Amino acid sequence: MSFINPHLISLNENYLFAEIARRAEAFSQENPGVRLLRLGIGDVTLPLAPAVVDALSRAAVEMGSADTFRGYAPYQGYPFLIDAILKTEYAPLGVTLHSDDIFVSDGAKSDTANIQELLSPDAKVAVCDPVYPVYVDSNLMAGRTIVHLPCRAETGFAPALPEIPVKAVYLCSPNNPTGVALTRAQLAEWVAWARAENAVIFYDAAYRTYVESPDAPRSIYEIDGAKEVALEFGSFSKSYGFTGLRCGWAVVPAENRWGLQKPWLRRVATKFNGVAYPVQRAAEAALLPEGHAQSLQNVRYYKENARLLLAALRDAGLTVFGGTDAPYLWVKCPDGLDSWTWFDRLLREKQIVTTPGEGFGACGAGYVRFSSLGGREDVAEAAARIGVQ
Amino acid sequence: MSFINPHLISLNENYLFAEIARRAEAFSQENPGVRLLRLGIGDVTLPLAPAVVDALSRAAVEMGSADTFRGYAPYQGYPFLIDAILKTEYAPLGVTLHSDDIFVSDGAKSDTANIQELLSPDAKVAVCDPVYPVYVDSNLMAGRTIVHLPCRAETGFAPALPEIPVKAVYLCSPNNPTGVALTRAQLAEWVAWARAENAVIFYDAAYRTYVESPDAPRSIYEIDGAKEVALEFGSFSKSYGFTGLRCGWAVVPAENRWGLQKPWLRRVATKFNGVAYPVQRAAEAALLPEGHAQSLQNVRYYKENARLLLAALRDAGLTVFGGTDAPYLWVKCPDGLDSWTWFDRLLREKQIVTTPGEGFGACGAGYVRFSSLGGREDVAEAAARIGVQ
Repeated sequence: MSFINPHLISLNENYLFAEIARRAEAFSQENPGVRLLRLGIGDVTLPLAPAVVDALSRAAVEMGSADTFRGYAPYQGYPFLIDAILKTEYAPLGVTLHSDDIFVSDGAKSDTANIQELLSPDAKVAVCDPVYPVYVDSNLMAGRTIVHLPCRAETGFAPALPEIPVKAVYLCSPNNPTGVALTRAQLAEWVAWARAENAVIFYDAAYRTYVESPDAPRSIYEIDGAKEVALEFGSFSKSYGFTGLRCGWAVVPAENRWGLQKPWLRRVATKFNGVAYPVQRAAEAALLPEGHAQSLQNVRYYKENARLLLAALRDAGLTVFGGTDAPYLWVKCPDGLDSWTWFDRLLREKQIVTTPGEGFGACGAGYVRFSSLGGREDVAEAAARIGVQ
Repeated sequence: MSFINPHLISLNENYLFAEIARRAEAFSQENPGVRLLRLGIGDVTLPLAPAVVDALSRAAVEMGSADTFRGYAPYQGYPFLIDAILKTEYAPLGVTLHSDDIFVSDGAKSDTANIQELLSPDAKVAVCDPVYPVYVDSNLMAGRTIVHLPCRAETGFAPALPEIPVKAVYLCSPNNPTGVALTRAQLAEWVAWARAENAVIFYDAAYRTYVESPDAPRSIYEIDGAKEVALEFGSFSKSYGFTGLRCGWAVVPAENRWGLQKPWLRRVATKFNGVAYPVQRAAEAALLPEGHAQSLQNVRYYKENARLLLAALRDAGLTVFGGTDAPYLWVKCPDGLDSWTWFDRLLREKQIVTTPGEGFGACGAGYVRFSSLGGREDVAEAAARIGVQ
């Protein structure tokens, strides 16, 4: 066995969503015909916007005709999509990037998992706790040491700067799972830290379109000096309903002080062969005026879901974080219950499926995550049941 | 800089296709209006089969309707596609695999680049020379030592077994770039070697549908005992025209003697989020009877291209390998010319763009690769010009 990657073999299986599915299934077996309200996994439920479907369909037809067929795409993505990302995702924020800075990918999950390949195996990496497990697992597979930054209610779930030297930190804002967005001041402090410590920030902005707080940046490049030390990851999944189409992008600015753009291109050109042409056309359509307006209606729908849940949970006397700048609500378990016990009660007493917070790290213990990405009917019914003691 | 992956930084830029593009562009600048016959990069040129386009279009429409919309796909791929792969790609060969053995991916390039993550950093890896550069570069990025297995005309470009111990070997058959397929006896020897040496074979079968030699297997699992020691990679790119759609699959059999199926699933579930639903439907259609028959017509078209080129090159007195079991012809440069010199002559004197063999490794020196994946008009014109001395 000695030639098998020991870090991969020793990694525990991630049972979180499998265990949730198992408990939900067991309940359904015992209670046939009872409908479950699934507010667990963070998958979108609304269909793609009509203009996006049109673009996808048109591109499909193009692939069937000799004069419009497309083979291998450019490694970094088609210029039409990169232009749309620059114009719709960055220009309105006052952020100027160049087309060479953008790397279209098959999603922020792949990018945030792969980006650690830029680091040497002995680089120390910091992550928040609770955290999106991909950051942790991808680094563990490479044998790296992880430093956990506890995020607690007392500080609004904002991570404190690392107390020991680290060379890279993952920040996700608005955050999965806590639903909380970093403020401009907090993010500026992180950028200043990275510049002083000569450390790189991996900034996951997958939920950026959900931000409504005026003091929460949508891009880390709204902070002066960030281009030198931060890479950013964007996603079409939650903003435009692309979880089943797979498209995102990484930003590796030319201004990066370690010159990471060239090695990242080398990595992408070696290990990736671009995103499907029809998906890139669909992504472009989601950023052009018609498809963008239609897609943002979906975001408003999910945000209205979040408002309904937030109000019901607060009315029930619960302590709730998130839900304003993200599709997630991070809810303190009542009566000192642990995550799985409250998860079970919500399942058995109210038929609501959630995600136990400890699945996201030790500091998630005592919390449960509600997702607002379900259908309105389920969300409204869940809100009504939460109100009934 | 010390926290940046030193193996990634120190890797030379791969200038091959960029250099080819530069020389072709320079020629076009000097000779405006002269049409180039592009037989260089191995990209397909025929459009997708009608049944595949229909499936892609239908799936696009499904994504626009609430009751047929699909979010995250299963990590290993949709069962409908896995079933189609088992039935169309393996059952006719007498190879029985199970659905858990198949991992649908965004292409054999990604898979063959990522599979080395199963290996420990100090595992020694063997590759053929000449070779598809992805195997080499992905291992160099991880800091591994590479052993090159020279493939020469004297042995029909079949690699000899490694003379020093290695724990993994990449085999590509039919081969890119030489176009030669391993025989059943040669492959059986490799499987026996792997079983005896306790080493893993990474078998790239991306060009399998081009095989016509009766003694060349299309899958390594046609060899007894291979399931225990070999992983296989399949691709929709060259067989079904999917270079711009991105779909392939890895086979990690339950019978693998090191139990690699579970760690590979862990890797896939952590770093990948599935292939776009419409692309999976398109891939399924390419394997169902109508789309499969239509797609194989395209393969026959490219193989007829290869026959035209092969005949013309041989008529011109050149020594040619490949072209029968693969869309590539591996041609010895005449008059002792080196690869780039003959490349330049073909470009300047005949306006044919090829790929210099030394771009694939030291043993590729003195050869040039012709691709048969172009349009018939270009190929026929190239064949005619080759005949003119």
